[in-house]
Amino acid sequence: MEKNNKKFHDQIVPLRDEIDLIDSDILSLLARRQAQVEKVVALKKAHSIPVYHPAREEDLISKLRIQARKARLDPDFMEDLYRVILRQSRVKQTQKMEHKGVLPNARVLVIGGAGQMGSLFTSLFTKSGYEVRILMEQDWDHARELCRDIDLALVSVPIEKTVHVIKEIAPFLPPKAMLADLTSIKKEPVDQMLGSHQGPVLGIHPLFGPSLDSLDKQIIVVTPGRDSSACQWFIDQLGLWGAVIVKSTPHEHDEIMEIVQALRHFATFCFGDFLFQRKAELERTLEFSSPIYRLELGMVGRLFAQDSSLYAQIIFATRKRRTLLKEYIESLGRHIEMLENNDKDLFIDQFNHVAQWFGPFSDQAMRESTFLINKLIERF
Amino acid sequence: MEKNNKKFHDQIVPLRDEIDLIDSDILSLLARRQAQVEKVVALKKAHSIPVYHPAREEDLISKLRIQARKARLDPDFMEDLYRVILRQSRVKQTQKMEHKGVLPNARVLVIGGAGQMGSLFTSLFTKSGYEVRILMEQDWDHARELCRDIDLALVSVPIEKTVHVIKEIAPFLPPKAMLADLTSIKKEPVDQMLGSHQGPVLGIHPLFGPSLDSLDKQIIVVTPGRDSSACQWFIDQLGLWGAVIVKSTPHEHDEIMEIVQALRHFATFCFGDFLFQRKAELERTLEFSSPIYRLELGMVGRLFAQDSSLYAQIIFATRKRRTLLKEYIESLGRHIEMLENNDKDLFIDQFNHVAQWFGPFSDQAMRESTFLINKLIERF
Repeated sequence: MEKNNKKFHDQIVPLRDEIDLIDSDILSLLARRQAQVEKVVALKKAHSIPVYHPAREEDLISKLRIQARKARLDPDFMEDLYRVILRQSRVKQTQKMEHKGVLPNARVLVIGGAGQMGSLFTSLFTKSGYEVRILMEQDWDHARELCRDIDLALVSVPIEKTVHVIKEIAPFLPPKAMLADLTSIKKEPVDQMLGSHQGPVLGIHPLFGPSLDSLDKQIIVVTPGRDSSACQWFIDQLGLWGAVIVKSTPHEHDEIMEIVQALRHFATFCFGDFLFQRKAELERTLEFSSPIYRLELGMVGRLFAQDSSLYAQIIFATRKRRTLLKEYIESLGRHIEMLENNDKDLFIDQFNHVAQWFGPFSDQAMRESTFLINKLIERF
Repeated sequence: MEKNNKKFHDQIVPLRDEIDLIDSDILSLLARRQAQVEKVVALKKAHSIPVYHPAREEDLISKLRIQARKARLDPDFMEDLYRVILRQSRVKQTQKMEHKGVLPNARVLVIGGAGQMGSLFTSLFTKSGYEVRILMEQDWDHARELCRDIDLALVSVPIEKTVHVIKEIAPFLPPKAMLADLTSIKKEPVDQMLGSHQGPVLGIHPLFGPSLDSLDKQIIVVTPGRDSSACQWFIDQLGLWGAVIVKSTPHEHDEIMEIVQALRHFATFCFGDFLFQRKAELERTLEFSSPIYRLELGMVGRLFAQDSSLYAQIIFATRKRRTLLKEYIESLGRHIEMLENNDKDLFIDQFNHVAQWFGPFSDQAMRESTFLINKLIERF
């Protein structure tokens, strides 16, 4: 056995050395690739051309899949690998590009600009060559000066203060300045902005937290209020920073967010709260966990890693939301009888109805989540 | 502008050609790497050494991170990339290795072996050189012959048939044959196996669906019943196929699965059912979705893409489970008052309690899910 081990060792070491050499060569090529990409970025920047070029990426992936097959490599593996490489290249490009200003030297006042989301936008505007001013609670005595000659006032304050802050700031704004807000509800703030200010009005809801270092592919909902053409530069700027813009009305936005934010977060809160009530043994359950459970429990843990008052704001935003959540709880009550009667057939029947309604999305969800589960297995 | 475009085009084409050449070189190196890995596999196979070598992988990643920094490449990016490469290499290796049998030529009877999960195990056993027999419903007349001289009878039938099938098969088993089952509950089946059969008994619960092509890093819970040493070869075999083995008692297993499977799936069912009741506009909500919502809705869609009767089995498995689920619904009822009173403070208070209880897991969950969200952005 000793001798056998030594023989194995003698044989495997040169193979591993060879693999290490190949890895070094791959790394050198990646560094060369990065240098080329930087040249492409410089060129794009000089010509004001956006970074992300979906057609070029898909074309590159298709070619590589064909080459992979010829080289006896798994095309899916090759695609996975290049998605990582292309994302890195895109992030690098976006980081360089986002400095570009659509309306450089314009004057932007960020109300709440030292808060979390406010800081993110302050930093983006500053990097892009705007003149940025910040108004925090203690600065209201100077509000009039801060508003002088501004092109945009961006309200970035907690949801329950938004309407009040809009009322307070509006009298100081130049009539042609754009007034915009970042609140996660849109109907009340946009109505208030339209009522208090005569100039261009734009509602904005960034669908991400403030902890990002790039807006790359992040979604921002934009709900026009007044004078869209005067607001366009700001929308273009969000796009240049890498964001994907979705247009909506304040009403539709709020309806959809009831589901996408309030209901979802509330359901997750209820689930986590029940685990807490039962004092479930998290550690041990994780040992018993398929990657998908780990992922689902991770979603619950993720909620509770964040700011409780933020979620309170989202969940309790409007009476309509609270009513929806009550209806959710009541809809669960319907299932008690099914459980008491041990009525599997009813469950199957209801399940199949929902499945049919979900339709093609289910298959897509299955594909996407399977992809992620593989990533999770890969990494952890 | 025309001219400007042409100039840009003339400048970018050679840069892109150069990138394409680099990509071809990377691909060739990956193919060479794969060939080397195949040699390592052959060597490991000859020496019966397991494929996965965590220390070697971590060592390789650490070295590459250092090299990456020197080459001005982002070490996290390099690590991401090599996690993909190493996983591919591991899957390839496991595919080759899993043929290896711990007790080749042993005779295995898979009851329900033509079903989904049964087929997976039948295929694994066959590839590993076992003599595999299958018993389906129509074969009970031949049960005695099928059981002759077998070393293992593996019960892979729907949950509600398990106990009955165990009772039926036991009288035909050789006294020294191992009896094992794959049911997702363990107390009743293991009790029944111990009561009906005198030989070695092992409860098994694979925490994955039957659609896999490799057990690589998949979790299998094993609950010993009787004569663990006689059962060890099968546990070793599961390990050689790539699975991670978690040992437990039938009682503990069932308690944990109440949470990990029944509660979780039921909560997801309730959420999907409510979306269906409200006829939420899925398509449009997805356009308004941050990657995390997409992922969470994907988890719901994933449930409904699967077999309703499987989930009915899991959810309605025991009276204890149904009671737990009723308690879950009732615990949600507690929140109605909070919503009616618009009591944000109570919400924040409860939220913080749960957050404290989740403790370090929350941060870990935040890290893991952020990693996945980036993967999702990368891909879709």
